[in-house]
Amino acid sequence: MQAAVLSIGTELTRGELFDTNAGTLADRLTALGFEVVRMQTVDDDLGRIVATLRELAASPVRVVVSTGGLGPTSDDLTAAAVAEAFDAPLERHEATLARIAQIFASFGRPMPPNNEKQADVPRGATILPNPVGTAPGFSLERDGTLFFFMPGVPREMDAIFEDSVKRALGPLVRPSGHQIRLRTFGLTESELATRAEALFADVPDVTLGYRASFPEIELKILARGDDPRECEERARALAQKAREALGDAVFGDETTSFPAAVGEILRRRGLTLATAESCTGGLLSAMLTEMPGSSEYFLGGSVVYANRAKTAVLGVSPETLRAHGAVSHETAQAMAEGAREIVDADLAVSITGIAGPGGGSDEKPVGTVYFGLAARGRKTVSFHRRFRGDRERIRTLAAYVALRLVKRAAEGEDLEAP
Amino acid sequence: MQAAVLSIGTELTRGELFDTNAGTLADRLTALGFEVVRMQTVDDDLGRIVATLRELAASPVRVVVSTGGLGPTSDDLTAAAVAEAFDAPLERHEATLARIAQIFASFGRPMPPNNEKQADVPRGATILPNPVGTAPGFSLERDGTLFFFMPGVPREMDAIFEDSVKRALGPLVRPSGHQIRLRTFGLTESELATRAEALFADVPDVTLGYRASFPEIELKILARGDDPRECEERARALAQKAREALGDAVFGDETTSFPAAVGEILRRRGLTLATAESCTGGLLSAMLTEMPGSSEYFLGGSVVYANRAKTAVLGVSPETLRAHGAVSHETAQAMAEGAREIVDADLAVSITGIAGPGGGSDEKPVGTVYFGLAARGRKTVSFHRRFRGDRERIRTLAAYVALRLVKRAAEGEDLEAP
Repeated sequence: MQAAVLSIGTELTRGELFDTNAGTLADRLTALGFEVVRMQTVDDDLGRIVATLRELAASPVRVVVSTGGLGPTSDDLTAAAVAEAFDAPLERHEATLARIAQIFASFGRPMPPNNEKQADVPRGATILPNPVGTAPGFSLERDGTLFFFMPGVPREMDAIFEDSVKRALGPLVRPSGHQIRLRTFGLTESELATRAEALFADVPDVTLGYRASFPEIELKILARGDDPRECEERARALAQKAREALGDAVFGDETTSFPAAVGEILRRRGLTLATAESCTGGLLSAMLTEMPGSSEYFLGGSVVYANRAKTAVLGVSPETLRAHGAVSHETAQAMAEGAREIVDADLAVSITGIAGPGGGSDEKPVGTVYFGLAARGRKTVSFHRRFRGDRERIRTLAAYVALRLVKRAAEGEDLEAP
Repeated sequence: MQAAVLSIGTELTRGELFDTNAGTLADRLTALGFEVVRMQTVDDDLGRIVATLRELAASPVRVVVSTGGLGPTSDDLTAAAVAEAFDAPLERHEATLARIAQIFASFGRPMPPNNEKQADVPRGATILPNPVGTAPGFSLERDGTLFFFMPGVPREMDAIFEDSVKRALGPLVRPSGHQIRLRTFGLTESELATRAEALFADVPDVTLGYRASFPEIELKILARGDDPRECEERARALAQKAREALGDAVFGDETTSFPAAVGEILRRRGLTLATAESCTGGLLSAMLTEMPGSSEYFLGGSVVYANRAKTAVLGVSPETLRAHGAVSHETAQAMAEGAREIVDADLAVSITGIAGPGGGSDEKPVGTVYFGLAARGRKTVSFHRRFRGDRERIRTLAAYVALRLVKRAAEGEDLEAP
């Protein structure tokens, strides 16, 4: 069954906001078994939104999933456009209005008059409740096409899609097989594709897909067929084969991020961790503490940007800094040891490097990063890597490589260059 | 003048690759003075690409900029679709073929036969040379609409756009006014809209827009008109009026994030900063170090997740922790003082709270956060806030409120509750 994704907002057509919703929805609809044949973005212009809705209703797509334009401001026009396009006048939905007022009341604030319009929905529409924000979504059928409208805020869109849209769409398609996603870190997309395609070259009825979400890449393995149980079993066997072939590049399934996977290993093994960061500036500890319950294994971290912080907080000696520099094996090791000892952690990892754009030299160009790992009762080790790209990319890659080092240490592996 | 952006590729409609080209092109076209009214993505299906091209030629847009589908493989169909849609048969462009063969020769490899098709372009098209890859782009006019086709590889698209497309488009547009963007933190989108709309209710020829990028919200003020100089002057005056009315909710113009704006204030005043974080886990220091050059003012931070880290790293006394708890005025103040003293910073800010979802109590529910601020020669102060929302939202808001506290302290203001 053919589907379309519609994004509404001048901030998108002016290139001010990057549209992550469209790609996410294309992925989810494809996973459900739809063929997405059209993705469209239109600006906040009533006439053009109306024309687009009518075009989509007249096109062969049977499902349209839309985001954006449901906010409280005067340029949020989606509900009004639907009303005009489909001759379904706006009606106030009292239960929704009460819910919006209640949300503001719980913040101890009066509801601004602007927000009232978020309770106006086209006649005949079904409300899609928003568990995490004020604007509900709504759905409605026209000329055999089922339209879903959701707010553009990604976490609101996400919640409404999971709670309501998925359930409504499920019965429309027959799954064409069973898909398993493996999340990987450490291979480029073309390395991953080359290896996965070689692995499954002679296997019938399997479709491979990839999805890059820097620095992670997802491998999607779809076992095609009509019998759901048989497909699921086959998909599981194929995923197991991929896991074995790809080794520790595969770190998890579905929704677990790499930091969460590493945290889970620490928790399961009862190990505690400390961090010491220079060029990543706290990014690593921020990743490690994104997950609820991270206090079970993460004791603390030091962001030692200035040399005096490296000395005062972690006890890196001024002689080490003078003789080898802040970006060196010696400093990385001393940082990791200081971080471990100060809170008596089982493991500590350190990162010191040059994230750029300034600060590079011929000997230590931008992207040069040293990592140290100190473990209770083991010899402290350090590694050196050189990353390419801009500041953000270098910092993210450095944090991920440090996580991989922690993973290997936690699993008791011999530490080779991460 | 109206423009459209077209992206071609099944990897996009399956959600396997996020389309960065569309947003980039929307931004570039807007900057040139075009009104982008439509962005569309179509899968690698000859019939649907042909239909989309004909629709666009018949629509009011005068310029279409397209990426994707110019590669050497069998699912690269853009040139064939253009040929069919516009009755312009493919013709081999010998100079292009020679150039592709030469690129392969320079790698010491024979040209694969597949690549020959990259030299086939629709009759009447103008070649847009590709300085960084094998596939050239091409442009062609149909029914008063100018079409540009470029490869989907972002750096190739980028190079062709800069070298050829921009030059061809420049003479077509006159800017329609002057826009200024003000970035704000501390008001909700509807509060901002209510206040801005009241402020400019009687002002003619001005368009207001908003862009939320949590937790920041941008107010866009467009002074419409034909005379660029007059529009710019008027936009500046309106922006100044908005700044005065909105007070310190406005923290910057255009592309400066709040962390960057606060960093800039510190840099300008020659002040140094240290941080001490518990529930935000390093998020604040990661934000502060996103900007190149942040080492000028940011000395370091401590992420003291466990109580033993609060004591060992920052000298928070076990008695304080026992008597008042880790989430308290007393601990927040001790953390800020410890963080300031250990690296001898001018200012230090601390955050300690309950980000959830677990860990709350009746007295201190999830979302309860204490902030401390220590400044050289001033009395240490602390504040208490309660945030709503999920873990990510609470952490982000807490980091931003801490930044606002730093901003006020750096500007020498009396510190009231942030």
